[in-house]
Amino acid sequence: MAQKILVLGGGFAGMYAANQVKRRLGAKADVEVISRDNYFVFQPLLPEVAAGSIAPLHAVSPLRELLRGVFVRKARVESVDFERKIVTVFQGVQRRPTEVPYDHLVVALGQEVDLSRMPGLTDHALTMKTLEDARRLRAHVIERLEHAEITQLPDVKRGALTFTVIGGGFSGIETVGEMKELIDRSLRFYPNVDPGEVRVVVLEFAHRILGEMPEKLADYAHRTLARRGIEIQTGVGVASATGTQLVTTAGEVIDTRTIVATIGNAPSPIVLRLDLPIEKGKIAVDRTMRVTGRDDVWSLGDCAMIPMKDNASARGDFAPPTAQFAVREARQVAENIAASLEGKPLSPFVYASQGALASLGARRGVAEVRGMQFTGFSAWLLWRMYYLAFLPGIATRARVLINWILDGLSPRSVVHLRAETPRDIRHHQYRAGDRVYERGNRADGVYTVIEGALEVRRMNKDGTETTRNIGPGDHFGERILFGETRRGATVRALEDSRVMVIHEEAFLNLAEGFAPLQSYFSDYLRETHGLDWTPSRPGRKNAAQ
Amino acid sequence: MAQKILVLGGGFAGMYAANQVKRRLGAKADVEVISRDNYFVFQPLLPEVAAGSIAPLHAVSPLRELLRGVFVRKARVESVDFERKIVTVFQGVQRRPTEVPYDHLVVALGQEVDLSRMPGLTDHALTMKTLEDARRLRAHVIERLEHAEITQLPDVKRGALTFTVIGGGFSGIETVGEMKELIDRSLRFYPNVDPGEVRVVVLEFAHRILGEMPEKLADYAHRTLARRGIEIQTGVGVASATGTQLVTTAGEVIDTRTIVATIGNAPSPIVLRLDLPIEKGKIAVDRTMRVTGRDDVWSLGDCAMIPMKDNASARGDFAPPTAQFAVREARQVAENIAASLEGKPLSPFVYASQGALASLGARRGVAEVRGMQFTGFSAWLLWRMYYLAFLPGIATRARVLINWILDGLSPRSVVHLRAETPRDIRHHQYRAGDRVYERGNRADGVYTVIEGALEVRRMNKDGTETTRNIGPGDHFGERILFGETRRGATVRALEDSRVMVIHEEAFLNLAEGFAPLQSYFSDYLRETHGLDWTPSRPGRKNAAQ
Repeated sequence: MAQKILVLGGGFAGMYAANQVKRRLGAKADVEVISRDNYFVFQPLLPEVAAGSIAPLHAVSPLRELLRGVFVRKARVESVDFERKIVTVFQGVQRRPTEVPYDHLVVALGQEVDLSRMPGLTDHALTMKTLEDARRLRAHVIERLEHAEITQLPDVKRGALTFTVIGGGFSGIETVGEMKELIDRSLRFYPNVDPGEVRVVVLEFAHRILGEMPEKLADYAHRTLARRGIEIQTGVGVASATGTQLVTTAGEVIDTRTIVATIGNAPSPIVLRLDLPIEKGKIAVDRTMRVTGRDDVWSLGDCAMIPMKDNASARGDFAPPTAQFAVREARQVAENIAASLEGKPLSPFVYASQGALASLGARRGVAEVRGMQFTGFSAWLLWRMYYLAFLPGIATRARVLINWILDGLSPRSVVHLRAETPRDIRHHQYRAGDRVYERGNRADGVYTVIEGALEVRRMNKDGTETTRNIGPGDHFGERILFGETRRGATVRALEDSRVMVIHEEAFLNLAEGFAPLQSYFSDYLRETHGLDWTPSRPGRKNAAQ
Repeated sequence: MAQKILVLGGGFAGMYAANQVKRRLGAKADVEVISRDNYFVFQPLLPEVAAGSIAPLHAVSPLRELLRGVFVRKARVESVDFERKIVTVFQGVQRRPTEVPYDHLVVALGQEVDLSRMPGLTDHALTMKTLEDARRLRAHVIERLEHAEITQLPDVKRGALTFTVIGGGFSGIETVGEMKELIDRSLRFYPNVDPGEVRVVVLEFAHRILGEMPEKLADYAHRTLARRGIEIQTGVGVASATGTQLVTTAGEVIDTRTIVATIGNAPSPIVLRLDLPIEKGKIAVDRTMRVTGRDDVWSLGDCAMIPMKDNASARGDFAPPTAQFAVREARQVAENIAASLEGKPLSPFVYASQGALASLGARRGVAEVRGMQFTGFSAWLLWRMYYLAFLPGIATRARVLINWILDGLSPRSVVHLRAETPRDIRHHQYRAGDRVYERGNRADGVYTVIEGALEVRRMNKDGTETTRNIGPGDHFGERILFGETRRGATVRALEDSRVMVIHEEAFLNLAEGFAPLQSYFSDYLRETHGLDWTPSRPGRKNAAQ
């Protein structure tokens, strides 16, 4: 009977593993991939999606197209029962759990981003991990240009035109290079923005960028980016962030509306929930990629700690988390699963990097291939050729190539597609002295203090001013219940503070439809404001879709 | 001194009006367009975006590219002070109001969708008005196919594979035709879905579809769509909708997860707020498109009621809300504004329709051009040629043409791009007898009853069952506060009900960070469940981005 090989994850590691297992075992194996998305993301192209040189749809391939003969399940993994050999998932809009049995399990769930070590960063930074992230970044940059074009306030304009990227590794450098190209090529449509007003900064905590590349190439990259007007700060990290500022570890306060964090890799919550042996945040495996203590569970890719030698201990003794390695690991894991089914001995994973490439945007790059080094246009062309050849599927390759040709021929579109509706409940970080909002501003929601202290100054009808200081648990801005559309008070942070914002529409729905809040606000408004409030329109408006 | 001509709206009417005014008046006018989006949407292509034959970015053009010499402001109109001749807007992320002065104001704000007359439709129907709508529909259809492919529950599969479109006008017919083509072309990737299991239905309340076209062409369209497996119900409308069903006015209950509403045009809230004379939901203008009672305010497009003859009263006496008319109106309004500045007499808007075209998907169409009628492939080709020529800007035309060619050559991508994160606060409609959730389901949030009555059945630890009936103001599902991930109770609607759902993460943030809810739930859980709850992680997780 066919063995059921179940692969968790549809990235480089998972997709290629499923593909290789199917190829090797054919009808002898039922191969299934469980993936949150129904597509494979070609990660190296994400910066180009963010810069608009490739359409989002064209930088990804449907797993169903790539994995013929493999069953693809778009679902979220909830848990694994290693004794019963069953994975429990939630699929579709369904809330009913589904059980998927396996004979061999391959865990390739990658990593996620955790920015919680730096105050405010989780709340205010964009990331560059998923396709959604890339789309969001493009929309965000264009929105900033739109705003800079029409604002008459110099400090708002400065913040809108300052773009910061945290991390000078491959992802950070490629992102900043592409982002700068998008901005440069778009400025012709924004006559009120002078190129000299644009500031693009990248922060790298190490003493140089592109730490994984030879120093000579990193130096070339540094000079090339600097010549294009990108400011590179090495030996500098981020200390904290708010919606309008970034504070560096060097003490500089940068007014910016754009913080892109390419740092902070962390294990995904699912991996931690699986109850497998964890080593430095990754799943512990032996050199054959079999999970320590299990005969039928394998792990590879960014979520696994794969030793490349016996008694591995130093960082360099383990396989690095790159696409290049993941693809090779997939091949080896497939071979080992086949061997294990046939009762043959397993082989350790052995591979030496063939080199590294980085695009710097604006037709420049750096590359090291089998010891040879390339810079400039030739390296950039090599980058494009390499990744084009690396892309899975002919259709995808054709689409990307056509996108690239079109992008070379025509101006880049400055269409701002809203990537997402803002969440109904958000958090904001403020630094001591920051203004949360001021009198006359549009009333956009109700705020509650999570940490810190703030000051609310209200102008009374008789011309006098009332000041009250508030702290954790207090709320402000609730006058939107009376249809207040403009703020009557000015609120400032007295110390570094974190607040939770409930979006106007959501708050009205809650206050009018949710009984505990209804009675609380009836009482509260009567007692503190002497006002009578009766919820008039419970559930009056759709918040779905 | 140059006159300031301010255009509100960047659709067919507004974009062409700004363009024509600038062309006619050149340096004699400062022309500004205020638009919510920074792009012009070519509405007739939206069904193709929904079907994936054109990338979203390629179906729109940046206003800045189309309107050289015109100032484009991406902002939301709040109010107009007609005495001071000032429009107040909110721009960017800013909450500070900005005032924009004008000499002549052109209102071209279009229409919006209002589905509130039919219970549940606002909460559960998709619409086809904006680019976001089209993207969302494509993602929604593919998500249904993904779910149908993997579910083992026959009724879930039937609901996932039943697609309904409400309205048999141009928008409804083109949408249903394209949607069917997307499904048909995608099925090769979904081996578990038999084509016979797919049901696509369009409901039209009138006695025939395409009411604006000659009967002969509408009949052809009807036959062609029916032959392709699309079920057309005429004389039938929608009575009510839930997340899983649509009830028709004929009494049929259709199990469906997809309801696309192409009906329900209504004035936008901004238009109603402007305090201009309104006639049948539209701005009242004279035959020159000048707003009744104002010398310096003009209105055109879908938001204006433009009489085509003196003493107009019947529906046919007014300009129809089509792109074809809007473009002609724009030309006339520009001429009249120029005439008004030069003190010359104004001319009434006069135009006779040159015909109409509709695409039926799968390379079939119907067309009437200057009295001549076309059907089938020739009409479809005419449709594409006409709209290609009609598209503004050579770059856009080239992009659309290349998209079309690629789509003809390669399989359509089934990549499911998540269009949006679901809202934190949503509403759901249920019919009497519907299950809201059942024991063992994933706990996805906290529910509160807005209207109706429900029954909660809980299995106790000793094996007995407790039943309680709840109504407006009551809540259920709050055990997620203790980390409950699966439901311990089954909830059903006893009568037609509407509930508000607060998404799990949002609810935990609110209950732990918002003092009134914190104390309410401490008390509540102690009193009703005898459980001690202390909020442990206020604001623990980011809900931003």
